[in-house]
Amino acid sequence: MRKVNIFDSTLRDGSQAHGISFSVEDKIKIVKKLDELGVSYIEAGNPGSNPKDREFFRKIKEIKLKNSKLCAFGSTRKLHSKVHNDTNLKSLIDSNAEVLCIFGKAWDFHVTDIIKTTLKENLSMIYDSIKYLKEQNKEVIFDAEHFFDGYKGNKDYAIKVLTAARDGGADSLVLCDTNGGTMPFEIEEIVRELVIDYGFKNLGIHCHNDSGNAVANSIVAVKYGVNHVQGTITGFGERCGNANLSTIIADLQIKMGYDVIDEKNMEQLTAAYRYICEVSNVIPNDKEPYVGNYAFAHKGGMHIDAVYKNPHSFEHVAPEMVGNERRILMSEVSGRSTVMSIINSVNPNIKKDSEEVKKIIEKLKELEYQGYQFEGAEGSFELLVRKELGLFKPSFKLIEYKVMIDKPSTTEKSATVAMKIKVNETVEVTAADGYGPVNALDIALRKALGVFYKSVSSMYLIDYKVRVIGGDKATSAKVRVIIESTDGEKTWTTIGVSYDIIEASWEALVDSVEYNILKCNKDKEEKLNE
Amino acid sequence: MRKVNIFDSTLRDGSQAHGISFSVEDKIKIVKKLDELGVSYIEAGNPGSNPKDREFFRKIKEIKLKNSKLCAFGSTRKLHSKVHNDTNLKSLIDSNAEVLCIFGKAWDFHVTDIIKTTLKENLSMIYDSIKYLKEQNKEVIFDAEHFFDGYKGNKDYAIKVLTAARDGGADSLVLCDTNGGTMPFEIEEIVRELVIDYGFKNLGIHCHNDSGNAVANSIVAVKYGVNHVQGTITGFGERCGNANLSTIIADLQIKMGYDVIDEKNMEQLTAAYRYICEVSNVIPNDKEPYVGNYAFAHKGGMHIDAVYKNPHSFEHVAPEMVGNERRILMSEVSGRSTVMSIINSVNPNIKKDSEEVKKIIEKLKELEYQGYQFEGAEGSFELLVRKELGLFKPSFKLIEYKVMIDKPSTTEKSATVAMKIKVNETVEVTAADGYGPVNALDIALRKALGVFYKSVSSMYLIDYKVRVIGGDKATSAKVRVIIESTDGEKTWTTIGVSYDIIEASWEALVDSVEYNILKCNKDKEEKLNE
Repeated sequence: MRKVNIFDSTLRDGSQAHGISFSVEDKIKIVKKLDELGVSYIEAGNPGSNPKDREFFRKIKEIKLKNSKLCAFGSTRKLHSKVHNDTNLKSLIDSNAEVLCIFGKAWDFHVTDIIKTTLKENLSMIYDSIKYLKEQNKEVIFDAEHFFDGYKGNKDYAIKVLTAARDGGADSLVLCDTNGGTMPFEIEEIVRELVIDYGFKNLGIHCHNDSGNAVANSIVAVKYGVNHVQGTITGFGERCGNANLSTIIADLQIKMGYDVIDEKNMEQLTAAYRYICEVSNVIPNDKEPYVGNYAFAHKGGMHIDAVYKNPHSFEHVAPEMVGNERRILMSEVSGRSTVMSIINSVNPNIKKDSEEVKKIIEKLKELEYQGYQFEGAEGSFELLVRKELGLFKPSFKLIEYKVMIDKPSTTEKSATVAMKIKVNETVEVTAADGYGPVNALDIALRKALGVFYKSVSSMYLIDYKVRVIGGDKATSAKVRVIIESTDGEKTWTTIGVSYDIIEASWEALVDSVEYNILKCNKDKEEKLNE
Repeated sequence: MRKVNIFDSTLRDGSQAHGISFSVEDKIKIVKKLDELGVSYIEAGNPGSNPKDREFFRKIKEIKLKNSKLCAFGSTRKLHSKVHNDTNLKSLIDSNAEVLCIFGKAWDFHVTDIIKTTLKENLSMIYDSIKYLKEQNKEVIFDAEHFFDGYKGNKDYAIKVLTAARDGGADSLVLCDTNGGTMPFEIEEIVRELVIDYGFKNLGIHCHNDSGNAVANSIVAVKYGVNHVQGTITGFGERCGNANLSTIIADLQIKMGYDVIDEKNMEQLTAAYRYICEVSNVIPNDKEPYVGNYAFAHKGGMHIDAVYKNPHSFEHVAPEMVGNERRILMSEVSGRSTVMSIINSVNPNIKKDSEEVKKIIEKLKELEYQGYQFEGAEGSFELLVRKELGLFKPSFKLIEYKVMIDKPSTTEKSATVAMKIKVNETVEVTAADGYGPVNALDIALRKALGVFYKSVSSMYLIDYKVRVIGGDKATSAKVRVIIESTDGEKTWTTIGVSYDIIEASWEALVDSVEYNILKCNKDKEEKLNE
C-alpha cells in the first residue's frame, strides 16, 4: 500500500471562496479536527499577506498536533530582491511553521504578461527562494502554479521550472491546475511523461473543479505516480472550488487501496466534513459523495427493496465505513420495509405484521393522500410513529395566538404575535415581533418554551421551503412547508401541510421544537442510564 | 467533429432525487427548455409505474419539439410473461413516445439475488422485449443496469447481456454505472475492451456521482468510443446525483471539440440550468462548473489583477461562451441578448448600446444583488423594463392593509384582511378572509381592483413558490416568492423578495395583477387598431 499524503488547504485556498471568512478561533478548531482525522499537512494561512494569519501562527504554537504537520504559504522572493532580506520569505520563516509552501509561475505567459519579468529571473526567484528556505532547515513544498497550462503552452519552460525547484532542494513539486481546465486524460499523459520520461519524484497535485473533474484529476495523478494531493476537505475554494478531499480520501483508500489516513479514522470522515462546514458557516452539501446527507439515501421502491435484500446492490461502499448512514426516503412508491426501519428505531420489538404497523401504515397513507411527504421529513415521521404507538407526550399546549400585520408598518418588523401556551399547569404569555408572521411565530414559540426547556433556546431554523401541492388556485390551494432545523450539531426536518401557509408553518415549527425536546430528553436519559 | 448525443433524464432519474416532485405543468416547461437547448433525447417519465406520467404523455403530444426526441422509460417484460400481453411493454407503447428506453440487469448477482431468476431467463427478457418493441417501429435504447459492476464480477455474463440487447435490435447500448462506484481508469479500460476487443457499436454511458467522478467517467467514455451520454442537466438524481450534463456538454464541445449541441445554443447553457432549477424548486449550485454563480467569480487580489490584465490568466474558458459572466451577478449571465429581446418587445426601436439599456442593466444588477432572479419571472421583468423606460403607470395605489390571524380560529379561514386602495381619485375599501394571509390578501386585492378592472376578477394564481435565499437563520432570512398566474389562456410569472414572506408575496401579487391589467389594455388597444 503506497503512502499518499493529503495536504488540506481549507484555511488558505479554501478561504478564497465566496462568503468564507475565518476567525483565529475558527482556524484553531479546524486545525484540531483535521489533525484528528489524520491528514498529513494542514496549510493554515499566508503570514506574509495577512496579520490575522500571523496571530494564528503565534497562537497555534501552544497546540501539539498528533498526526499533521502545519504549513505556512507564501510566494517566492520578490522580483530582483535578495533572499536574506526579502520580506515574503522572512514572514514565512517567522511563522515558525514546520513546513513552508511557496508558489511560483510555471506558465511562461504568466511570467511575461502578468508578473512582467524575464523567464530567467522567474527561474532564479524559484531556485534562490527554495535553496534559502532549505538552509533554514524547513521542509519546502513548491506549488508550480498553472503547471498544466504551462506544459501545454511551453513544455520546455515548464520542465525548467520544476527542475529549478528540484535543484533548489524542494521536498515536493506540486503540479497545479490553477484554472481548473485540465481534462483527466491530459493529467494522465502529462504525469506519465514527468515520471517516466523526465524521472521526477515526489510529485504532488493541486486541482480546481472548473471542468467538474477535480476529484478525477487528483486520483488519476496518484495512479500515475503522484504521492501528495492538495485540496480542501469540503471542496471550498475559489470559483467552483478546490478538489474535494473528503471524496479523494475515500476514493484513494477504500477504492484504490492506498495508505492515506489511519484506517480507524475513516469512520470520522462524515463527522469531520460536517463539523468543518459548521465552523465555516456553510451549509453542507447533501449530495456530497460519501459524506452527504443523501449519499446513501434511497427513494425508488425497487431500489429500496433491493437494498433490504442486499445493501451492496445499490451502495458502492458501506455507509458505516465513512461514518455515514443509510437513509430510506419515503414516498408513495416505497414499500412497507422502509417504514419498518424507523418504527424499529423507536421500538425494536415491533414485528412487521403487527397491528401497530398496520395502523401506522394506514395513518401514513391517509397523510400522504392529504399532501404530506415524509421523505426528507424524518423528524415529523418519528413523531408520527411515536404518537401512533402511544409513546409521545406533547411538551406544551397552545392556548392561543394572534398575529397582526400592518402595511405600511411602523417598524421594519411588520408582524407582531401575542401567544399563550401551557406547560403542565403553568401558563406562559409572551409576545414577539418579526420579519413577517412565520419569523414572529418562531421567535415567540421559542421564547415561551425556552422558559421550560433550555435546549429550545439554542436551536434555530436553517431552511424553510414552501410549495403549493395540487389544486389550481394557488393561494387557496394546499401548501406544504418543510423546515430544517439544527442545534449546531444535528439537523432534522419537519413538515406541515394546510390550506393556510401560517398553519402549515406552525405545524412544522411545533414538530421541530417537539423533536428537539424529545432528543434532548433522550440524550439525558441515555446519560443517566450509562 | 464526431457527434455525441445527449440524453437528459431530469424528468425520470432526476425525479428520484430527494425533495423533487414534478407536476405535469413543470414537466412540460422543462421539456420545452431542454428542446430549445437542443439535447438529442428527453427521457420524460415512466408511464408504467406512474399515472401522472401517463397524463403527461397524453398532454405532450400536442407540442411539437424542434430538436429533441421524447423518450419513455420502463423495464423489460416481466418474469416468464409473453411480450404481446405484458403490461410493462404495453404502457411503453401506449405512451406513444418516439423513443423507448428499457433497462435490464447486467450484473449476475442482481439477477440471481435481487430479481431471483435464472441468468438465461434474464437474457430472454432483454432480447424478447427489445425485439418486440423494434417490431412496433420504435427507436429502442437499452440501459444495461450495473454494467460496470457486472463486468468486474462476471465479464462473460455482462457481455452476453449486451449481445442479447444488440441481437434484439437495440439502437443504443447504454453502460450504466448505477451505483456510481466506478473509477475513470476502469471506465477507460472497459470501454476500450468493448470497442476494440468485442467490436460493440452505438454505446452509451450513464454515470452517478457517488465517487465524485460522474463527469470524468462520462467524458472518458466518450473519448474511448461512446457516442451517447445520459445524465441530468442540473446533476439532480438519486443519492449524490446523476452525471451533470451542463458540465459534460461544455467539456465535450468546448474542451474536446465534439459536436454536441448547436453552436449558437451554447450561450443558453447557464440560463437553461438556472431555469430548470427554478421550475424544480431547487436552489442552483453557485459552485457548478461553467453555469454556477461563482464559476467565474474572483476573490484573491492577485487573481483579480491578473484577470484585468488578461482574463485567460485565471479563466479556463470565456464565461460568455456558456452564457455566464465574470463575477457574480446574473444580469449579464442570461446574456445581454436575452435582456434585449424583452426590451425590444416593449419598444423595438431601442438599440443595444443605448443609455436606456445601460440604465436597465444597472437596475437589474442592483436587484439581482438584492436577491431577485428574473429568469422565470418574465412578468416582473417586463414591468421593470417598462418602469425604467417611463412606460408604466401603476393601476392603483395601496393606502393600507391590516391582516389579522387567530388560532384557534372561529372559522376555517383564519386570516382576515382589511384593505384600502385608490384608483385615480376613487378610494375603495374592502375586506376579505382567506386560508391564510396570502390567500386573504389575494382575494381582497382582486375584489377591490375588480371594481375598476374587469379582467382582474377572472384571473387567478396557479402556482406559488417560496425559497429562502442566503442567511443561515431561515425564518429571518430573505425569501423569494414566485407566483404564476393565468387568465385561463396565458400564464405569467412574477417575483417578490423581502425578509418578510408577506411583503414578498404582496410584491409578487401586485406585479401579477399589474401585468394582467397591462396585457388586457394592450389587447384592447390592438383590437381597436385592427
